[in-house]
Amino acid sequence: MPTVPAESDDAVFALHKGGKLEVNPTVPVRNRADLSLAYTPGVATVCSAIAADPELAYAYTWKSNTVAVVTDGSAVLGLGDLGPLGALPVMEGKALLFKAFAGVDAVPLCLDCRDVDELVETVVRLAPGFGGINLEDISAPRCFEVEARLQERVPIPVFHDDQHGTAIVVLAALTNAARLTDRALADLRVVISGAGAAGVAVARILVAAGAGDVAVADSRGIVHSGRGDLTPVKTALAELTNRSGLTGSLASALAGADVFIGVSAGQVDEAAIASMAPRSIVFALANPNPEVDPAMAGRYAAVVATGRSDYPNQINNVLAFPGVFRGALDARATRITEPMKLAVAIALADLVGSDLAPDHVIPSPFDPRVAPAVAGAVTEAWRAR
Amino acid sequence: MPTVPAESDDAVFALHKGGKLEVNPTVPVRNRADLSLAYTPGVATVCSAIAADPELAYAYTWKSNTVAVVTDGSAVLGLGDLGPLGALPVMEGKALLFKAFAGVDAVPLCLDCRDVDELVETVVRLAPGFGGINLEDISAPRCFEVEARLQERVPIPVFHDDQHGTAIVVLAALTNAARLTDRALADLRVVISGAGAAGVAVARILVAAGAGDVAVADSRGIVHSGRGDLTPVKTALAELTNRSGLTGSLASALAGADVFIGVSAGQVDEAAIASMAPRSIVFALANPNPEVDPAMAGRYAAVVATGRSDYPNQINNVLAFPGVFRGALDARATRITEPMKLAVAIALADLVGSDLAPDHVIPSPFDPRVAPAVAGAVTEAWRAR
Repeated sequence: MPTVPAESDDAVFALHKGGKLEVNPTVPVRNRADLSLAYTPGVATVCSAIAADPELAYAYTWKSNTVAVVTDGSAVLGLGDLGPLGALPVMEGKALLFKAFAGVDAVPLCLDCRDVDELVETVVRLAPGFGGINLEDISAPRCFEVEARLQERVPIPVFHDDQHGTAIVVLAALTNAARLTDRALADLRVVISGAGAAGVAVARILVAAGAGDVAVADSRGIVHSGRGDLTPVKTALAELTNRSGLTGSLASALAGADVFIGVSAGQVDEAAIASMAPRSIVFALANPNPEVDPAMAGRYAAVVATGRSDYPNQINNVLAFPGVFRGALDARATRITEPMKLAVAIALADLVGSDLAPDHVIPSPFDPRVAPAVAGAVTEAWRAR
Repeated sequence: MPTVPAESDDAVFALHKGGKLEVNPTVPVRNRADLSLAYTPGVATVCSAIAADPELAYAYTWKSNTVAVVTDGSAVLGLGDLGPLGALPVMEGKALLFKAFAGVDAVPLCLDCRDVDELVETVVRLAPGFGGINLEDISAPRCFEVEARLQERVPIPVFHDDQHGTAIVVLAALTNAARLTDRALADLRVVISGAGAAGVAVARILVAAGAGDVAVADSRGIVHSGRGDLTPVKTALAELTNRSGLTGSLASALAGADVFIGVSAGQVDEAAIASMAPRSIVFALANPNPEVDPAMAGRYAAVVATGRSDYPNQINNVLAFPGVFRGALDARATRITEPMKLAVAIALADLVGSDLAPDHVIPSPFDPRVAPAVAGAVTEAWRAR
């Protein structure tokens, strides 16, 4: 099982020294004349104009290009509850990727509160100065309610990346893996391990995209309507998924399945992977430690993908979230719609084109076409709504 | 009375197009190896280390160099309640000055709430990711309670700049104006117009520094213990100030006074300025429109100062706040103490040195010695506590 090699820790800590972001002026402050324009007295004119017409904030402040990256630190990567401060390096990383990949300015905000009402209320209060809200690393099932209630309260797009970023990129990669193995999404029986933020969102988008059957397992096994221990979100999931009525363990569900999608930290053993149907597809996405050793999975599966930067087929949200917000900000979208997400997945899948191969079912994050294609899909879907 | 000339509006709006700040990566993201260090999987190591020892956030995140600039938009410059969005251009301006003058990264946060409990609670929740909190443009008397209660709740310095930044710079300028006119602070009878954030803080620091007598006027006249309409803050102010027992109007208090300090938008007429003592000192600090036309005041006073960038003797908080936070962050101070503020005022006054003149009682904001001198005074005062 891959882990972070000890010898890289020095390089990691050295790189993180002093953090990974800075806030820079975009206008000069060289002399009193500059100060008179950018600060008092000049700035007063701009403030008064915006107070009279709040729409002007999009023209004369950073709002039009700035996203808050908000977490409570309750579900950091696959590591669990590290608290707001423990989440800060991820939020800084997210913010730097926003800028590097799509020119979006992003501000990490690590909130020291857990109650859903308090989280929603806090973000509502700080929303005016931002053009969008990227929620991050908030544990399920609170994340679903936080996102939905927050979006009802603010006139800017709210996007819980652990849900939708993952779901979009998984759908893109699965679309290409199906193409590569000469099948349609409708031909595939999919088993998802994990019924948290990512698992629920992946299941929803795959059903919406027409996958053949989708079953989701949590730590107690396959989610089905006969279970008496389901949260409201899982009850809805049981109704949406598992048409074939699977019960029992994840391992038993994998027997004969076409696709495994791991979005929890739970390890899956070799026998379960070996029991899958021919030409199987294995996406082991837990970070930093995949559910399945990719080398082992490669002995059985036609396509293997992970969430890590250091393996091929990286199913990483960075393929989606920078361009999603670039497009949403450009279009002045007030929310991220379902058609937007499907359009982004198709755009990402199509970028691979004739380069499609077992180790290349998804574009590289460093393909410069990615963010423009994603942003274009978002703005087009918003305008066509 | 000077106002923003209409012909400069085009330049002001042109400069503000798209806002005045951006958030930039300080580390490269050129390839998968970079991504593995700055994001997953490498970042997980840093997150886990910080979760185990939160002090490490100062070494490996932006916290050690980053301040939140927080407002509710209830008292923007001298313009009043413009709301959170109307305040954003000022907060962006503040943030760019933090960076330009002291290398401090600052994030504007414009909060859509007014209740003191809610403001305090909101800032407490977002405090973990920051090394300090600069409160800004929050109306009196709520600002006093917000600052005091917030500082009790967070282990990082909280500084309401409209109070203390102004107070520090006024004390520095007044110290030099007294020197220039061969008097000690103890010789001066001071009248302050405005009992809001700045007026209260200026009165407090002048009393602490040993000014002869200080009287404060609000819109109903001089604050004195005999008035039945005083808020708790003004009741305390009445006890602290006005030793000579003045009552009545601001104009009547100015007759024979040595110093006028205007920190409200209320205009003062020529007769009142003319009635002051010889060698009078007039600081008309309302922004963007001073209480007294500086040209008119110059016909009567020995020293005239304003808050504007486009006149000499600019009593602007920018002389204090960048260096104050630079020093506080460097010293890892957990609060801004009274001795720190007095030390900064002395350091600022002393920088003028032999250049002291009626149009030069305070250093230029562009004097490169300012921020280091202020930061040095802060760290020294913190270490000597």
